[in-house]
Amino acid sequence: MLANATDTDFAAWMAGVQSRVEAALARALPGPQHSPARLHEAMRYATLEGGKRVRPLLVFAAGEVAGAEAAKLEVAGAAVELIHAYSLVHDDLPCMDNDVLRRGKPTVHVEFDEATALLVGDALQSLAFQLLSDFSLGDSPSQLEMVKTLAVAAGSRGMAGGQAIDLESTGKTLTQTELEFMHLRKTGALISAAVKMGALCGGPCPAALEKYGHRVGLAFQVVDDVLDAEANTATLGKTAGKDAKQGKPTYVSAMGAARAREFAEELRSGAHMALAGMGARADRLRQLADFIVLRKF
Amino acid sequence: MLANATDTDFAAWMAGVQSRVEAALARALPGPQHSPARLHEAMRYATLEGGKRVRPLLVFAAGEVAGAEAAKLEVAGAAVELIHAYSLVHDDLPCMDNDVLRRGKPTVHVEFDEATALLVGDALQSLAFQLLSDFSLGDSPSQLEMVKTLAVAAGSRGMAGGQAIDLESTGKTLTQTELEFMHLRKTGALISAAVKMGALCGGPCPAALEKYGHRVGLAFQVVDDVLDAEANTATLGKTAGKDAKQGKPTYVSAMGAARAREFAEELRSGAHMALAGMGARADRLRQLADFIVLRKF
Repeated sequence: MLANATDTDFAAWMAGVQSRVEAALARALPGPQHSPARLHEAMRYATLEGGKRVRPLLVFAAGEVAGAEAAKLEVAGAAVELIHAYSLVHDDLPCMDNDVLRRGKPTVHVEFDEATALLVGDALQSLAFQLLSDFSLGDSPSQLEMVKTLAVAAGSRGMAGGQAIDLESTGKTLTQTELEFMHLRKTGALISAAVKMGALCGGPCPAALEKYGHRVGLAFQVVDDVLDAEANTATLGKTAGKDAKQGKPTYVSAMGAARAREFAEELRSGAHMALAGMGARADRLRQLADFIVLRKF
Repeated sequence: MLANATDTDFAAWMAGVQSRVEAALARALPGPQHSPARLHEAMRYATLEGGKRVRPLLVFAAGEVAGAEAAKLEVAGAAVELIHAYSLVHDDLPCMDNDVLRRGKPTVHVEFDEATALLVGDALQSLAFQLLSDFSLGDSPSQLEMVKTLAVAAGSRGMAGGQAIDLESTGKTLTQTELEFMHLRKTGALISAAVKMGALCGGPCPAALEKYGHRVGLAFQVVDDVLDAEANTATLGKTAGKDAKQGKPTYVSAMGAARAREFAEELRSGAHMALAGMGARADRLRQLADFIVLRKF
């Protein structure tokens, strides 16, 4: 996929954003010289040097459409990633998915302990909102709108709600509408929020970007379902095949892997269509839609 | 304690604030008609009809000093209470204090289940920030300052950090300095934040109120330690005597109950001193300092 000149350029752009966001996260997370040392160490373990940083990449790509400053996008990207990192720590806990491997490393409750993992997630969520409120956009209404966007996406009608539906659905068969309702919350809400927050760093968020975020968010989860069913643990850096093992309804269980891949393709086209007429400034968003659907891990 | 005319007036004021905040919380919490119904039901169970609402009372009392509008104080008070409610749900989990009784009712993980309790806490935290960002103060810098104040107070160098130190300290003997460091975070941070947020609803927070919040916050925990050691479960509405049973260092274990009560008295005087010269508009804060130190539950 990353073969021609444009793709090389895209890979360099991704690496640049990833390293900027890594630095922003490292600055935002208190070091172990601050008490409580063990909690701060565990928060850094859970967040740094891990993942593809898809959400911050979307923040930066949407920021390019809006002509936003990189310094603001860094903060917004780090805030979204802190919420994502907290959700992984809590999802992996024994009372949830009970998983031991994440990003190729032992999960936080395995490396530290369960109580620490609980507090790590709690404190990472607080830190996301601290970060968002602690810098000046020079345009406070947008900044408050960003806080609200992230809070709604993380909450009971967003990510946490999607996770609750996921738990309730284990062992059940869901219709495609029910699956979509669940996944738009569990994964889609935070992905859409990332796009919106990137745009808000430059001004009001255009409706086209909200549509794009919605489609890419759903596509991300459809592809996740396919990869969980087809890839192996070493490639994914997390336990593969666990959806089927846990009896979780997925796009693969609902429509089969081939149709799920087709559906992801349709969503990718839909994401491109949402950006029609936006010109070259939306190229990063287009490339990210391709990256999200065509990824192998 | 509530015997003379002033006390009757104070009791009526408390009841008025409590009912306003209860209504604000009931409006902010999604009803079970919204999916996921069970999560929303559990969030309401964890938050409504419970507790003394000490933190919202402090928000309103500090708001009187600042001449703030009740409509703003309601929102700030509800947001602080949502953070407090989330912390109780997570603290009661089996991997933390493993408690079965709270506010005279079964704890959330007992009444529902552990995964739901985890998500309830997570979603209540998000809702607090959603609420704070979702109303217009007509003065955005203060509103962002409120988001920041609450986020810092809840985070790893505030409440979540205090809880981590508490867990690490079980079975150990702490010096008074170490105890104070822990309690200023575990309980003091959110109490101080309540005072500051009430003030911010009217304008910048005066230094005297920050000092008051600090002292009252510490006094609250000292009294909690004494009550845990001396009161009974029926009066408290939560399990009594659990600090000693769990080998937790407290002001009672560090200095004995008599000296701990004296220390609480000193902090109460200190809180009154911080308000010297503020006149009658600080009377509610004075009454609350007395209420917090002299309470029996």
